[in-house]
Amino acid sequence: MQFRLINQDSHSKARLACLRVGQKVVETPVFMPVGTQATVKALSSEELGKIGVGIVLCNTYHLYLRPGQSVIKKLGGLHHFMNWDGLILTDSGGYQIFSLSSLQKTTDEGVIFRSHIDGSRHFLAPEKVLEIQRILGSDIFMVLDECLSYPVSYRQARGALERTLRWAKRTRATWGESEDKGLFGIVQGSAFRDLRKRASEELVSYQFDGYALGGLSVGEPLSLRREIIEYTTEYLPVEKPRYLMGVGTPGELLEDISLGIDMFDCALPTRIARNGTVFTGEGKKNLRNSQYKDDANPLDLDCDCYVCRNYSRAYLRHLIQAREILGMRLATYHNVYFLTRLMEKAREAIKRNSFERFKSEFMEKFEEENKKLDLKKEG
Amino acid sequence: MQFRLINQDSHSKARLACLRVGQKVVETPVFMPVGTQATVKALSSEELGKIGVGIVLCNTYHLYLRPGQSVIKKLGGLHHFMNWDGLILTDSGGYQIFSLSSLQKTTDEGVIFRSHIDGSRHFLAPEKVLEIQRILGSDIFMVLDECLSYPVSYRQARGALERTLRWAKRTRATWGESEDKGLFGIVQGSAFRDLRKRASEELVSYQFDGYALGGLSVGEPLSLRREIIEYTTEYLPVEKPRYLMGVGTPGELLEDISLGIDMFDCALPTRIARNGTVFTGEGKKNLRNSQYKDDANPLDLDCDCYVCRNYSRAYLRHLIQAREILGMRLATYHNVYFLTRLMEKAREAIKRNSFERFKSEFMEKFEEENKKLDLKKEG
Repeated sequence: MQFRLINQDSHSKARLACLRVGQKVVETPVFMPVGTQATVKALSSEELGKIGVGIVLCNTYHLYLRPGQSVIKKLGGLHHFMNWDGLILTDSGGYQIFSLSSLQKTTDEGVIFRSHIDGSRHFLAPEKVLEIQRILGSDIFMVLDECLSYPVSYRQARGALERTLRWAKRTRATWGESEDKGLFGIVQGSAFRDLRKRASEELVSYQFDGYALGGLSVGEPLSLRREIIEYTTEYLPVEKPRYLMGVGTPGELLEDISLGIDMFDCALPTRIARNGTVFTGEGKKNLRNSQYKDDANPLDLDCDCYVCRNYSRAYLRHLIQAREILGMRLATYHNVYFLTRLMEKAREAIKRNSFERFKSEFMEKFEEENKKLDLKKEG
Repeated sequence: MQFRLINQDSHSKARLACLRVGQKVVETPVFMPVGTQATVKALSSEELGKIGVGIVLCNTYHLYLRPGQSVIKKLGGLHHFMNWDGLILTDSGGYQIFSLSSLQKTTDEGVIFRSHIDGSRHFLAPEKVLEIQRILGSDIFMVLDECLSYPVSYRQARGALERTLRWAKRTRATWGESEDKGLFGIVQGSAFRDLRKRASEELVSYQFDGYALGGLSVGEPLSLRREIIEYTTEYLPVEKPRYLMGVGTPGELLEDISLGIDMFDCALPTRIARNGTVFTGEGKKNLRNSQYKDDANPLDLDCDCYVCRNYSRAYLRHLIQAREILGMRLATYHNVYFLTRLMEKAREAIKRNSFERFKSEFMEKFEEENKKLDLKKEG
């Protein structure tokens, strides 16, 4: 895996870079749509390609449980299975084990848990998690980590972090020096600066291909999250990618890019789409709102996506109200397109050293409309 | 509306014809996918176009209740609303009123019923039903009919039929002579030959653009249905299209084509797709079956559709098991493609006067595999 910095914005920590695994390249900052079960919900791989998505995230936990990595291997690996020729980052499953499954026991050896699907009992060690990702045929691998919710005590956070670091060391030891794929460590430590520092420094000493910020977007206040991102990135090497897990919304993406984040994933943009909420340059719009009942406009007046070129807000609203699959498809397509274009524009702005201006202009229009919406709701 | 016979098969009653409304043409026999709520469930209009679908059916009852014909009119009509430039046939809503809504009262004037969505009270007269279809901007209109389930008494069937015929007469009277769209009458009469005869003859005397066979596919035995189709079509003019409502499966389509049916609609092919059942030349396959768990083959070895060219049975099975929208999309795409190609092949066979041979060859392969499946289930 290669990561090459192209430009560092002169007025923020935003950076433009090029991430390459084998013959596949994406430019960062990049948003990775979430394809939990080997499909970005409601979209086909062909549509992702048309939108210009270059990398998706798949969930190791889900695919391990169903259909199982051996099935996917037999079908030629995850790329072939889902007919996707872009990059795939697989998470470690840590977050899902600690949030979805009924957890049985965590030891230094690994985690014993019960499947959320059928209650079956499983044991996953960090080495096994790496092996599963290898069998899936991922491009970028994540190490197993112990995820905590927010808030937790210092003692809890330190305990989980120490185990996560031991797991990271073991995982790194089984990773070959000449591997052409990428392996990322995950910085934990909750909201404790010294733990985040310790985690960063220790992981960096193991020399991973990239560093993820984990344990965020789990309920902490936004201002605290930004603070954590700000000080944690200081301990991370400039020349390696930084991946903020579980973020986010258009505004958060831009804020965190200006703090030096390169990669993002989040299920929210596709989840809210299925419920009828779409992004536009003028803020989020909830299509269930009756004001769109006979609105002939496209979802976003400034968008040139396939949905905005062919369908009206009224039609989308009708489909969402009638719980039609096509409504979820079209809204998801638009939201993923919106974020993909937003990242593209962000990269162009970084290239021109005008990222902060781009961000403020976008936020002003986007947030103002959202505030109006919130006021309406309250009123 | 024009209907021009191209060829009459020499060994069966199957016929090849050309149906034209304005500039839009489809060849018959034709299968019309059902787009109840202005969308063929799980598919986009663009996909229907790519598959080669030339005509879809939309439900007047559903669109009248939601979003309402005035919304659709404001959005430029049903074609523009759903971005569909093929033909649209709208049903009369009769079947839905009598099966979905909580029916309040049927009089000679019309029907009073409560919406299945919100319980609101509505009155629809046959003239109003025509008006709604006009506002929707349909290409082919159906007259309001009183639908009965099976079995019913002779007395019930006769009563409903007489009302249906009075409604048909009134509807026909409000239809302009020079209209460029099509208006179809619906032959009712349950399983009573004299009622079917009377219905056919009376409707034919009113001179509709086409004749539908209604009140079938409502629980009657298959052999009885074929018998009814056989004698009813004898009373219908050769030069007008015959539309069998609510049918069907690949085998039924071919059987009924050989009895002289030109048009079909049915929600089953798309509904079973969403549940994981797909058509293949070797019979239906239920993807939930564990035998497909790691099956790298396409759904149908002889199919060249987008799904069969790009995805495996194993991937489709995984998506269906995981209740992923993409699974429903891909299975639906394949089934609609399968039926569209089947109708194409049927038309080619009629052209070559070899429809019966084509039918037997298809059925032998298709039914044999289905029988094997059934035996397995029992065993």
